[in-house]
Amino acid sequence: MRPVYLDNNATTATDASVVAAMLPWFTERFGNPSSAHAVGAAAADGVRLARRQVQALLGAAHDHEVVFTSGGTEANNTAILSALESQPGRDEIVTTAVEHPAILALAAHLEKTRGVKVHTVGVDGDGRLDMDDFERALGPRTALVSVMWANNETGTLFPVAALARQAHAAGALFHTDAVQAVGRVPLGLRDTDIDMLSLSGHKLHGPKGIGALYLRKGTAFRPLLRGGRQERGRRGGTENVPGIVGLGAAADLAARYLETERGWIGRLRDRLEQGVLAQIGQAHVLGDRGNRLANTACIAFEYVDADALLLLLDRAGIAVSSGSACASGGMEPSHVLRAMRVPAGAIRGAVRFSLSRDTAVADIDRVLDVLPDIVGRLRSSSPLWRDRAPTFA
Amino acid sequence: MRPVYLDNNATTATDASVVAAMLPWFTERFGNPSSAHAVGAAAADGVRLARRQVQALLGAAHDHEVVFTSGGTEANNTAILSALESQPGRDEIVTTAVEHPAILALAAHLEKTRGVKVHTVGVDGDGRLDMDDFERALGPRTALVSVMWANNETGTLFPVAALARQAHAAGALFHTDAVQAVGRVPLGLRDTDIDMLSLSGHKLHGPKGIGALYLRKGTAFRPLLRGGRQERGRRGGTENVPGIVGLGAAADLAARYLETERGWIGRLRDRLEQGVLAQIGQAHVLGDRGNRLANTACIAFEYVDADALLLLLDRAGIAVSSGSACASGGMEPSHVLRAMRVPAGAIRGAVRFSLSRDTAVADIDRVLDVLPDIVGRLRSSSPLWRDRAPTFA
Repeated sequence: MRPVYLDNNATTATDASVVAAMLPWFTERFGNPSSAHAVGAAAADGVRLARRQVQALLGAAHDHEVVFTSGGTEANNTAILSALESQPGRDEIVTTAVEHPAILALAAHLEKTRGVKVHTVGVDGDGRLDMDDFERALGPRTALVSVMWANNETGTLFPVAALARQAHAAGALFHTDAVQAVGRVPLGLRDTDIDMLSLSGHKLHGPKGIGALYLRKGTAFRPLLRGGRQERGRRGGTENVPGIVGLGAAADLAARYLETERGWIGRLRDRLEQGVLAQIGQAHVLGDRGNRLANTACIAFEYVDADALLLLLDRAGIAVSSGSACASGGMEPSHVLRAMRVPAGAIRGAVRFSLSRDTAVADIDRVLDVLPDIVGRLRSSSPLWRDRAPTFA
Repeated sequence: MRPVYLDNNATTATDASVVAAMLPWFTERFGNPSSAHAVGAAAADGVRLARRQVQALLGAAHDHEVVFTSGGTEANNTAILSALESQPGRDEIVTTAVEHPAILALAAHLEKTRGVKVHTVGVDGDGRLDMDDFERALGPRTALVSVMWANNETGTLFPVAALARQAHAAGALFHTDAVQAVGRVPLGLRDTDIDMLSLSGHKLHGPKGIGALYLRKGTAFRPLLRGGRQERGRRGGTENVPGIVGLGAAADLAARYLETERGWIGRLRDRLEQGVLAQIGQAHVLGDRGNRLANTACIAFEYVDADALLLLLDRAGIAVSSGSACASGGMEPSHVLRAMRVPAGAIRGAVRFSLSRDTAVADIDRVLDVLPDIVGRLRSSSPLWRDRAPTFA
């Protein structure tokens, strides 16, 4: 039976056409773009086209605003460190409690080792930003506001364009970790105040190991990786030409699929959620249902251990996630759901289903076929289920 | 006609078998190694095998001593910053005048912005390290000694095992940028004092965008990229699974080809050098001829502009390099040859021919067919050639 992969917020399959686009750049057009000969020039041409493809998806004004990196984590780390190093009089960061570890782990490290003050803005029960808290956090010492475009666990979207305007009013730079949003929502960066944006190839059916930092023209910048003069001196290291070409091809595809993602994929997600809620009691959809990614369903099953649920679904050939795959090895409850003050019992049973354009309606129906029985079996073996009181008051 | 690619120190073609090994990891086994389900576990298996393959090529004692990075520049930057951050009482670096920009540019930046003292050890006319200068540079404040294993322009090999022992005697860590050496000379790290080593996939017929930092077990370490807990918390960011698998396959191949590189490729290089010197006057082989990479020939043609020579060779379908491709955009004379005190006129005419196991004897003979005529034409149009005095006294 075809495996059902519903963990596209962890990673997507690289599109076959993206792989096909990459192939010649390994063995035929394999040159170093910095080389002065024809082999090098051919490689530089591939990078040039890909930069324009990414520019187009972002709606950026200039192709040179795209700086290729090794992925979202490098882009996020670069943005934060650059904002601090390029503005010596400003030593505060404003971010949110629900960011990815690539933001929160670095912020915590800088707070501990470099005396950087980090304001972590909270969210409400639906994952929406606390705007009063946000405004209070901004100040004359804010170097950078970093708020994700879309949350990886619940899909909740943040009003980044408005937040960027507020950051600029306070004289701060604005960065958004848009790893989950790029290719899934329209971006139009040209018409926003966003200074920096991080994206990752493997979240939009491109290859792993490649990403980009959007860097608005004129934004103060300090490189993270120093070496050769690649990327206009903004990122040293021989360009990952096949990866860059693949990211460009994936960006091109994503631009074409954008409405599919929001239309067809959203209807599949709704079919999943409605089917689950109709068949399984004491299950709750988490996140801002009116304003979230079309592909993400975060569902908490009370009186169920999500890791056990994940295991039984895996045995049935269905791949889903309990919390962010990026923090694996840890069995801690999701920091995102805790920030939303989801009751502990519901966090314990929260599962993320994340769809993509590879998801078929048969995949959804497979989940709806097997899930009620699995949840029922897990609950029937739980002593809590027998003496239950509802988790949500 | 088959193009002749003699710029393998800039980058190599990815081996077709390496690409074949990578392919399933894009579209079939595409999971995130951090995911708890079967799709994720399959990806983790690929990373595990590749780590052992790289371990074997390095002759490292433990597979977890291999930390995958996005390439040589990231590995080099990580090593230097980690050595400084993990040893707060030590704020000096000892390195050489002939390192790659990924070392020298970061060292200069740290000297300027963080008050780090950088000792730049010189070399003699053959590119050999000044050992007296080296010993004087070591001291109780030395955090890190970073000396490349093989020079990218001349191929000259440094006695890194001995230098590592001296660094340890001074209480310092030892790092080597081995980007040009890995896959070309035996390494046997287990039996050395080397603490850290950088390597890059695309220099050994692996893909671009992937590399590794060897980190000896027990070595004090601070990560450069912070985020998820990948690579045992030593490098955040979703693993570049296809790239890692490709690097593993390339390491496996390199181990098998090591003697070919030193034997057959060395004989091809000697054929090239002997042919050039026999046919072209006032040409000089630069570097330590008794102790260098078997694949590299750095030849200075007096009264010739290397960039013009490169252009004419390129038109004839032959790709070579004048100076390091990593510093392109700049037309400055090679810092390596200047450190060797090569006369300015010879630096201006210095060309690097770098071979690989893809090089055929017919490729060498094509160069020998066309080069004397090209050099002759360039010289006949040069006023300096008419009134020449020998550059080397």
